[in-house]
Parts: sequence; C-alpha cells; structure tokens
Amino acid sequence: MQTVTNAVGREIPVELNGLKLKPFTGLFDNFPTGRKAGGHFGRHRPGDSKLLDSIDEAIEVCGLKDGMTISFHHHLRNGDYVMNMVMKSIAEKGFKDIKMAPSALFPVHEPLIDLIDQEIITSIEGSANGPIGDAISHGRMKGLHILRSHGGRVRAIEAGEIDIDIAFMAAPTADPEGNSNGMIGRNACGSLGYAAVDVIHAKKVVIITDNLVEYPCTPISISADYVDYVVEVDCIGDNEKIVSGTTMIATDPQKLTIARNALDLMVHTGIFRDGMSFQAGAGGISLATTKYVGELLKEKGYSTCFIDGGVTQHVVDIYNNGNCRKILDGQSFDVISIQDMLNNPDHVEITPGYYANPWNKGCLCNILDAVVLGATEADVDFNINVNTHSDGRVLHGIGGHQDTAAGAKLAIMMMPVFRKTNAIIRDRVTTVTTPFQSVDAIVTDMGIAINPARKDLLKKLEGSSASGQETEGSPLNIIDITELRDMAYAETGTPAEPELKDRIVSLVQFRDGTYLDTIRQVKE
Amino acid sequence: MQTVTNAVGREIPVELNGLKLKPFTGLFDNFPTGRKAGGHFGRHRPGDSKLLDSIDEAIEVCGLKDGMTISFHHHLRNGDYVMNMVMKSIAEKGFKDIKMAPSALFPVHEPLIDLIDQEIITSIEGSANGPIGDAISHGRMKGLHILRSHGGRVRAIEAGEIDIDIAFMAAPTADPEGNSNGMIGRNACGSLGYAAVDVIHAKKVVIITDNLVEYPCTPISISADYVDYVVEVDCIGDNEKIVSGTTMIATDPQKLTIARNALDLMVHTGIFRDGMSFQAGAGGISLATTKYVGELLKEKGYSTCFIDGGVTQHVVDIYNNGNCRKILDGQSFDVISIQDMLNNPDHVEITPGYYANPWNKGCLCNILDAVVLGATEADVDFNINVNTHSDGRVLHGIGGHQDTAAGAKLAIMMMPVFRKTNAIIRDRVTTVTTPFQSVDAIVTDMGIAINPARKDLLKKLEGSSASGQETEGSPLNIIDITELRDMAYAETGTPAEPELKDRIVSLVQFRDGTYLDTIRQVKE
Repeated sequence: MQTVTNAVGREIPVELNGLKLKPFTGLFDNFPTGRKAGGHFGRHRPGDSKLLDSIDEAIEVCGLKDGMTISFHHHLRNGDYVMNMVMKSIAEKGFKDIKMAPSALFPVHEPLIDLIDQEIITSIEGSANGPIGDAISHGRMKGLHILRSHGGRVRAIEAGEIDIDIAFMAAPTADPEGNSNGMIGRNACGSLGYAAVDVIHAKKVVIITDNLVEYPCTPISISADYVDYVVEVDCIGDNEKIVSGTTMIATDPQKLTIARNALDLMVHTGIFRDGMSFQAGAGGISLATTKYVGELLKEKGYSTCFIDGGVTQHVVDIYNNGNCRKILDGQSFDVISIQDMLNNPDHVEITPGYYANPWNKGCLCNILDAVVLGATEADVDFNINVNTHSDGRVLHGIGGHQDTAAGAKLAIMMMPVFRKTNAIIRDRVTTVTTPFQSVDAIVTDMGIAINPARKDLLKKLEGSSASGQETEGSPLNIIDITELRDMAYAETGTPAEPELKDRIVSLVQFRDGTYLDTIRQVKE
Repeated sequence: MQTVTNAVGREIPVELNGLKLKPFTGLFDNFPTGRKAGGHFGRHRPGDSKLLDSIDEAIEVCGLKDGMTISFHHHLRNGDYVMNMVMKSIAEKGFKDIKMAPSALFPVHEPLIDLIDQEIITSIEGSANGPIGDAISHGRMKGLHILRSHGGRVRAIEAGEIDIDIAFMAAPTADPEGNSNGMIGRNACGSLGYAAVDVIHAKKVVIITDNLVEYPCTPISISADYVDYVVEVDCIGDNEKIVSGTTMIATDPQKLTIARNALDLMVHTGIFRDGMSFQAGAGGISLATTKYVGELLKEKGYSTCFIDGGVTQHVVDIYNNGNCRKILDGQSFDVISIQDMLNNPDHVEITPGYYANPWNKGCLCNILDAVVLGATEADVDFNINVNTHSDGRVLHGIGGHQDTAAGAKLAIMMMPVFRKTNAIIRDRVTTVTTPFQSVDAIVTDMGIAINPARKDLLKKLEGSSASGQETEGSPLNIIDITELRDMAYAETGTPAEPELKDRIVSLVQFRDGTYLDTIRQVKE
C-alpha cells in the first residue's frame, strides 16, 4: 500500500477502498474553492400531508435503496430509541449495504452490531462510542469507519463528501409540518444543533417524534420547510438516560487537582479575565474545571462574555450568579440546562456548524479564549488521542476536540500521568486525534507541560512557579513533557505496542478533510 | 418577437435580452429536479477580524467588479439609509453595469435614478415601489426589471437564477463576527427574515450596523458563520420612517365596508372558526379586516392557531387578548410588534422562504386558511393586478400576493369597485400579478364576487344572501363579477388602454419562475 507521511508523522495510504486520502498538512492549510453542496428542492402542494403512519411507511415513501446513506443525530445519547427502531425496520425489509452517517453511536445502539455482521450496515461515518467501536476494531464491519469532529462532519456534508439520502431525525416535539425542537416534551434533550446540517442537506428528511403538537411548534429548531415527512411514535427514547451519565462531576482528589491546575494555568496566562470566553465540557474533570472557573469568576466579580459547549447546570449556575452574559448551547446534558434554554433568552441554541465548521465564514472556535479537554493518551510531541484505548480499540468519537483545540487561544488537555497500569503520557500516542500543532498545554496531576512552540505562553509563565512566583494565582508546576512521561513509565513500565493486524478499519480525519491517522484491526 | 400565450392569456416572449422565458402554465405545475445552488465556503482563521472601517473598504475587499450582482433587504423600508450609502460609494469608485437584486426599493431610494441614468445600475430584480418604478416605466433603465413574489425571490436565489456576488445587509444590531438581529437598536425593524436567503447564498456578505455590540449578539437572526465582514456606520436609517407609513388603519366608511364584507365571507365559508389561521397585511383595509377578525374572535372566544404576516399592533392585540396562540413574523410594521417579538416567545421570526417559497418542502402558505389582499385592479376573469397603475406605470412590488393567493384555502381580494375616475373592476387588468386560478373571492364595497371555479365555495354560500339567509353571520351580497364591472364602468366609463411603447421594461414572474406578464414602457 502506497503511503505518505503526514504533518504529525503518521503514514496515510494514498488510496483506501477507492477513497483518495489527503494527508494532514497543518491546522489552517486546507481550504476549498467553489460552492457548498446545495440542499434538495421539495414538491409540496396545499393539501399534501407530511404525516405518515409509521417508520416503515417513511422508509418506503422516501425510496430507500441498497447502498444509500442515512443519518441520525445523537442528542438523545444513550437514551435514544429512534436509530434502533429505524434500523430494525430497514433490516426487516431486507435492505443491504446501508451506509450510516450518524453524528454518534452509543452503547444503546449495540443491536446494530448484528446488522453490521449481516452486511446490512457496511460503513459508518460518525463516532462509534463503546460496543460498536469495539466490533469495528475487531474487523466485523465490511467497509470503513470514518471519524470526524463536530465541525468536520458539518464540513464534510456541506462539501458533498457525505451525501445523505435520508435523515431520520428524532424530535422531542414536532408539529405535522415538521417544525421541531428539543426543549419541550417528556423526552426533551435541549439543543437539536447536530441535526441542522442533516436537515438542510439530506435528500429526504423524516421527523420522528413522540410529542406531536399543533402547528406551529415553537421554538423552531428544525424548520418545516426542510422536512419531507413526520412520523409519530410511542416513544423516541428514555429521558433518564438522555440527561445523565456523562455529567457526574469529578470528586476524587487526583482529578480535582488536575481541574485546579487547569484553572491556575488560565489565571497565569492572563486568559482568565473579565469578559473571557470559555468552552465547557461534560467529562468529570471538565465539569470540575467549569465549577472552579465559576467560583473564581464570582470571587473576582468577573463575567464571561459567553460560555459555550456541552451545557450543564454548572454553566447555568454561573449565568444565574451573574458571571456569564450568554450561554451558547450545542448540546444539553441535564434537565436544568434544557429548561434554562427554553426559558432564558440569553441561553441560545447553536449548531456544530456555527461553532466548529472550519470552512464557514468564521466559527466560534476561532474566537474562543479557553477550552479544557480530556484525552485517553498524550505524547511527548503533544499529540492527543481521544479515539482509541491503548490496546488499539476505537471506543470514542472526536467531538469538538480538534475544532476547539485548533481555534482556542488556550487549548488545555487534562489527564492523569497514568491510569492504573497504563501510561497516559507516553512517547507516542496509539492514535493521533488532535495534532500537536493545536495543543497548548497538557495539565496533569503531577505538573503542567507547555507546548514548546508556544513561546509566548512560556514567556508569560516565567516566574509562575512555586519557587519564584511573580504572577497572580496559585503557583504552577511547569514541567517538561518528557518528565511527565518518565513519571508515567516509572509507574507502569514502558507501554507495549498494541497487537494489531494490517487491515485498516477506521480513519481519523482532521476537521479540514485531511487525514491524521489510521486505526487497524486488533488481534483477538 | 416570438411569443407564446400563457395560462392567463398573456403573450410572453420566448426570449428577451438573452433570457429564455417559460410561460406560466398553472399554480403548481412547475417543480424542479436536482439540488439548490449551494452557498459559499469561507476562509476564516483565528485572529482574522471581520471588522472593516467603511463601506468603501467593504466594496474593495469583497472585490466588486463591473457587471456583478449585489443585494439588499428592505426591512428598513422607507427609512433605509444603507442602500443609498452603498450605491453612492459604488458610483464614486467608477463601477458600471451593476445588477441590483434588492428585495424591494422605496421612495427613499430615489437618488438611485441618477445611477440608472448613468448606467451604473443596469438592471433591477426586485420590487421598485414608487419613483424608481416610474423611471423604469419611462424606459430610463438599460436592462430589465424583474418582479418576483416573496417566495419567488427565495426560489430564484436558491435555484441559482439570481446569483448574488455581494449582499449588503443592514442590521439594527450586530456583533464583530456578524451575528445580527433587527429587534434591538435605535433603528430596530423587527424581523430580518428577508435577509436570510441572501446571507446563505451570497458569495460575500457584509453586515452594516449602527449598533455594534459585544459577541454574541442574540437573538441570532443572521448567523456569524455566514458573514464575511462587518462595517459600523453612524446611522443605518430613520426609525420613524421604518415603522410607519403603511400601517394606518382605514377609517372611511367605504373601506370599512369592504373589510367587514371580507370578515363576513370568512364566517359564511366556515373558514372563520376556532383554531383558524390567518395572514394579516399592512394596507389600510387589511388592517381593518385584522381588527374585525380580532373583535369577532374575542366575541366568540375563539383562538387562531397562528397569525402570520406583516405584523402590527393589531395582531399583537389579538394575541394579548388570548385569541391567537402564535405570531409568525416575516416583517414588523410598528414599534409594538418589534418589542413584542423581542419579548414574547410565542412571537417568532420567520423568513419568506419558510412562509412562501414554492420549491421548498412545504411552505406556510400551503396550510394557510385565509388571507386578505389588496389590488390596483381586478378583472372579470379574476386576475389581479398589484404592480401597475391603470396608466401602465409599474409602481408596486408583488410582496406575498401570489404566494398566499396560491396557497391559502380562502384568498380574498379587497378593493373598491372604482377609485375616483378609475374602474378597478374591469374587463382586463393592465398587468396580471396574481393569476385567476389562485383567486377565490373579490370583495368590494358593492358586493362579493366568487370565482366560479370555486364551486365548493359557491355551494357553501348558498343561502347566505340578505334575502334568504340560512348561514351564520351578516348576510352577504354575492354578485357576479360582471355586475361589479358594470357598476364601475357606469361611474367611470369604459377605461382607455394605457398608451405604451413596444419595449418591454419589466417582467412579472410567477412564484415558480414562469412568466405571467410583461410591462411595457409608457409613452411620455
């Protein structure tokens, strides 16, 4: 197989399964010329009803065929029933070779593995969190799995790289014409931002709801003029699982130390200031950081111009304390944030295109001050892995990791130096998800490593250490990344390479459509 | 010139100025296949500023060239300063042959006539209300003037028929990244719906504001990811003229009789009912009808599921009385409606694409119960003219006239039988704006004529007349359209044909892109 070495030192095949792959060359190197792929016209006349009796009927009238591409959004997360219902119906109808382009899959979608084995599903372009990723890693899917960031997925659809035939969009509330939102209904999920690009570009759009209301359903998150059909079902999901799971704040001291160190780094670099902007995340350490950020904002009497992200009650608390002027919500993680989005005009729904698409006319990431992100591994070159575990299995998506790291003035990666017997800081990450060029700092429980390319940061942080502190905030333990690796290896030993076959099962795409890395099938 | 006769009996040239013209064939005959024209990618990196110092600079960095197409929205109506400022700058730079695609022009834009005379502006696709229409009628513009409806303009842009190079979008409030709305600011205009299609499709988008606020400007009516540049100016318009002028309710008895007759027709046809929908307009008679609708809703204890349209305080009053569940606002006509849209979550901004585009997946017009519309003339075939006066001058745009007439279950045209010495009901309208196929009833001060094709309506109205009333509501005076014409002619004499030259100066397009009529140059 002919390969080229990309700008993070990984070998990228020139061609794979008929797909020509461009290697990653740098953060803002690859821009397109020309126009986006247009959406599809409709043919609607007065008296035409969009209401269908069942998902079966929707599949029929949309004209699904073998080999077509279908999509779903993941706002219902691990509480989603819709994707399994649709795929069951597709399987029962005998279709084969369906290409899936969901924004993300969760453990609840484990039943799809059977359909992968039967070649009903032959490729997946989207995050495959948990068991489906594991199945892909074990070589069970015929075609390729392509991983994209939030912004990268929107870019790919707008560029025509993903061409969706039918988008099946779960909607917590909808009207008979297809106006929908996620803020109302017993299975409310808050923002429906992920759905926006699917709805605009898919040839056919089917809204699937368990709360059909009178026209017009407002707020209008999905707009009726983009919707072909509406199906009412008994239940689109399990609200308990939609709004829980990822939102448990860290409590153990090691993680809290990391979160505290991240805050201190923001203070010492001057990024923490009145009017700053901040992207919040939903992992345990990120939540703790958000909480600490909120506490210090309150103490200082500062106010962020906005906080965006995965929104949780911690963000809403900061707003309610008067320390945040606007909340921009791409994904809502709990009941409090969902209710707040419905009732608070300063809490605004945004799309992943708005916040992260690298090929639009300016995404939010490009003006973001600070983001805190997690990782499964980081290496001494400052590359970050969030996709695979150290055994090589692809168990997680990219989310907004690449997007925010590339755009934000201070992209902080937070992780322990090691987890149990696994070195997190290491010579070489198993998979490059986020390139070193975009990573500013790696914050651990044992110290903070600054990317040596960020000479400006290093200069700002002179005199911030415990021994000779000259700057505001708690003293920082700035340390060379190789020392963190050495600490890890001292505890875990030098990590073994994962045992892999030659076959490439997944590709990690950078947000601009170039390729960062390949992921190979694991040995049994 | 080779012509074909279209489905309203008008002769349409097969080709004009290199443009191939399809004749109008029917209301829902002409649908496209394939995809919409896509929008344009951007090239924005962190640190790139969108803020420019002046309109001059915006014209330069956008790369305006002779022959390009530029667009504007008309939410500032006769209070708009932006179009004149931009065109003055373009003229001073020596550009020629600029093609204008504004949603509408108003008397305030009269200075552009000089630029038309100098061939700086050579064609206008958009409503040319007042003096510029008059200049076009007198043959002063080199190229063609094309009139489209609200929905037709969106359709044409989405279909690539109008390809906008630069959209100059006035914004009462905006942030440095281009998020904008019309609800806030000293020149607030409410909805920015007209701007939506320009912003999505134009190659370059320039926001021009006199109220630059901190990021993020919310509500987000124009979204930053579609905006290339932002220019702050001293003043975008004159708020007094933005929110007045068209919103004076009729007071003279003749007009009030027409409005009352329209309401009675809604009652007798059963369209007036609990849960009905209604599109309100801004002309004096339409406002009176809206007021009467509101009064009867209140009396009956009914509630509309929605009222859309040109929103005025009369609509807001109906909502506040509890007789309207949602307001869908494509255009805001007064301060009360602007403030209500900002503060009332049930008062929602919509776009002309959403409400009127015939080629989307279902526009609001297709489910609308009733609309009341004005006219300059109507003929015995039920064709309606709103574009030209009886002397042949093109002085008005189409607005949503064609769109709502085609879609609504009951499209009511309201007009006096004659105005001074001019017969309004006549054998043949000077110009066909809205085809007879979409017109259900012509309501005058001297009786109501029902389109004979609407046998269902005629049946419903049996027994509704004064002499033998069997249905609810005040008795109706149902009368043959030819009788109304006779009454007009008895007063005014048979109208003379306008004196016209051969040259076609304007084209009236139907919302689906086919052509309804031509408008010829008037003799001096």
